[in-house]
Amino acid sequence: MRSFDEYRKIINDHLTDLIGDPGEEASELADAMRYSLEVGGKRLRPALLMASCEFAGGSVDEALPYALALEYIHTYSLIHDDLPAMDNDDLRRGKPTNHKVFGEAMAILAGDGLLSTAAEIVTGCPLKYFEDPEKMRNHIRAAHEIMSRAGARGMIAGQTADIKGENLEPTAELINFIELHKTADLITAPVRVGLMIAGADDDILERFTLYARDIGVAFQILDDILDIEGDQELLGKTLGKDAEQGKCNYAFVHGLGAAKEELHRLTAEAKEALAAYGDKASFFTELADSLEARNH
Amino acid sequence: MRSFDEYRKIINDHLTDLIGDPGEEASELADAMRYSLEVGGKRLRPALLMASCEFAGGSVDEALPYALALEYIHTYSLIHDDLPAMDNDDLRRGKPTNHKVFGEAMAILAGDGLLSTAAEIVTGCPLKYFEDPEKMRNHIRAAHEIMSRAGARGMIAGQTADIKGENLEPTAELINFIELHKTADLITAPVRVGLMIAGADDDILERFTLYARDIGVAFQILDDILDIEGDQELLGKTLGKDAEQGKCNYAFVHGLGAAKEELHRLTAEAKEALAAYGDKASFFTELADSLEARNH
Repeated sequence: MRSFDEYRKIINDHLTDLIGDPGEEASELADAMRYSLEVGGKRLRPALLMASCEFAGGSVDEALPYALALEYIHTYSLIHDDLPAMDNDDLRRGKPTNHKVFGEAMAILAGDGLLSTAAEIVTGCPLKYFEDPEKMRNHIRAAHEIMSRAGARGMIAGQTADIKGENLEPTAELINFIELHKTADLITAPVRVGLMIAGADDDILERFTLYARDIGVAFQILDDILDIEGDQELLGKTLGKDAEQGKCNYAFVHGLGAAKEELHRLTAEAKEALAAYGDKASFFTELADSLEARNH
Repeated sequence: MRSFDEYRKIINDHLTDLIGDPGEEASELADAMRYSLEVGGKRLRPALLMASCEFAGGSVDEALPYALALEYIHTYSLIHDDLPAMDNDDLRRGKPTNHKVFGEAMAILAGDGLLSTAAEIVTGCPLKYFEDPEKMRNHIRAAHEIMSRAGARGMIAGQTADIKGENLEPTAELINFIELHKTADLITAPVRVGLMIAGADDDILERFTLYARDIGVAFQILDDILDIEGDQELLGKTLGKDAEQGKCNYAFVHGLGAAKEELHRLTAEAKEALAAYGDKASFFTELADSLEARNH
């Protein structure tokens, strides 16, 4: 196991390696795809994927293409989410959003391109293991997991509820649906995918799925809290947008105090899910703590 | 081998079978995805996929999920292409486009949802063949083929060149790039995928790839011709848009006469590529003729 910073460095060093050349006539497509990848980011999801894979005895080399695919999916979802017809954001990580730089048409295509590239990567990985049916099976499971969690019953369902929930009376059920799908699905995916590549058994998968769901929901609740009382400069985005756009926000339904309590409870529950592994899982328990303490 | 109408009936009977339930909170996502699927269409791509699979000894049952995935990809590309920031079309097949019915945000998400569902389907198919490594390999190759042809070096590169080419001086190279990627890639994919599922050898794959590329390019050239002299009512869309939007159109570069000659030449070349199979390939040669003769 490596440190979070080491995983992040690996990701940043290889970030655009799997963005293919679309040809001179479409070179701006690759430029737009690269722009949003290189604007920065925590690299939480790919780091989780590589760490989970190494935890279960797999290698970083085997995990890397999936880690990149997941970051491409995360990035496409942000590009489309920032579009004028969606959340209409001019800034992301302190930099102009994709459509502000490349125009709306290119931003739509860059998002489509990143999602497609992710699908191309994960369907390409099992091809490398034609001589090893066991590994091929592990990789196919991983490929299906990533596309399902990112899909129309996963992240996109969460995005839909988030958009459709604007100016509806927010309910506890709706908030829960959005947290689980918009955010937790794409944090659960890397953990499960990393383990699947390494051929982990169902018991490990189950415990880590609980862990990931909890830190995923906690992540969204803290985003909701920061939208109300965060530091705009640290966050590099416009705050107070949830209230302005009539979005569902955990604190609007349950109150700011309850949001902080729930954040803490989920973090504790996430760590508890991995208690059986003791210090061997310290990467994950420490990560849960640092996510609870983040201010951006 | 069945007739084109029989393949089309199978597709239409199962068209939305693989659109999952995203949950009550996101039910409009599934409604928007289904709307554009059910608005109609020739079902050319899925029919080609099933026919190619049967030609090489595979079954319609095995081909159907891929055929649906391909129609979902084709439909997502139309939804995004019709958006105001892209081609800004109000009508598609004589009906209001997705964003006119569901709004722009939902149309973006419906497109993302259809593409993701396709990726979910094709990564799910090889999972069924865990006990049969040979079949598993065929299915993985097929899954990768479909996502590559639809991806950022395939169809999306073509869409990008089409958008970026607006109001540029159209050149023969640019036209060729757009025909190959925007259109022919998604006609080549079903043919190759159908054959791959059935485990066809490289010789068959090569001949059919030539055939598919030719009818794909011919398809786009005829679209360009119909945009100039087609029947608006039959086509169910606004004509003359290429000239209005400064789009690349084969006839603007080479002239209308040359466009018709090239359409005929490509159709003949496509049929020639399958000459070795004689009557066994009549489904495909007759289809090439009927595509050349279509007026919508």
